[in-house]
Amino acid sequence: MERIPILKLGDFLLVTIQVDMHDQLAITLQDDLTTQIAKHASRGVLIDISSLEIVDSFIGRMLANIAAMSKVLDAQTVLTGMQPAVAITLVELGMSLSGIKTALNVERGMEILSQFTDPGYEPQDADGSQE
Amino acid sequence: MERIPILKLGDFLLVTIQVDMHDQLAITLQDDLTTQIAKHASRGVLIDISSLEIVDSFIGRMLANIAAMSKVLDAQTVLTGMQPAVAITLVELGMSLSGIKTALNVERGMEILSQFTDPGYEPQDADGSQE
Repeated sequence: MERIPILKLGDFLLVTIQVDMHDQLAITLQDDLTTQIAKHASRGVLIDISSLEIVDSFIGRMLANIAAMSKVLDAQTVLTGMQPAVAITLVELGMSLSGIKTALNVERGMEILSQFTDPGYEPQDADGSQE
Repeated sequence: MERIPILKLGDFLLVTIQVDMHDQLAITLQDDLTTQIAKHASRGVLIDISSLEIVDSFIGRMLANIAAMSKVLDAQTVLTGMQPAVAITLVELGMSLSGIKTALNVERGMEILSQFTDPGYEPQDADGSQE
């Protein structure tokens, strides 16, 4: 069971992290995910961490890496289901998870991603905040 | 991390089983799942077992229990992502997984479940809930 499953949901890929991450598992996940993005021409990646009670710097770095790799492959990454305690810890540790969008749950994450697959949507980065 | 996350996707709930199941975890999952079905008035449950390399009689029984409980709550259960080797073993062990629909992947599982939420489809019990 040394592989985190990647589920295809339309244009998006869903990854649910439930187990303790270690080096090899993180590398396997990155390999699998980039392969799947290329194979299915996916536009977005949802990473659900609702069962993680601890997000340390290793996981934070892994998530940032995945988001960066996905971005190069033209797929947006959204982190979903973060527990409140994890958010508190991340801020206290000074980890900003820059470059990763977050959403309360998978459904909201899919809404965010849908904006990017909408043909009418104009990509605007960081400073183009429109409510 | 002694809890398997349940993700809400529209009318359906998605559970990805990645870890070795044991008694307490199975009971917790059953409790959580039935609670979530009732809370969201879900019409279907998708259980993805693509990362399971072994499905023994304990897991088989747990899946059958979940399917039966969901059915009582008017939700259909679809098992997705079964590895070919697992299918072979199940048949050789004489485990039929009766009462559980199966699908190759989550997308096909959602298609099957959509038939049940299709307005043209008449379930045996109409609870009058819209959306």
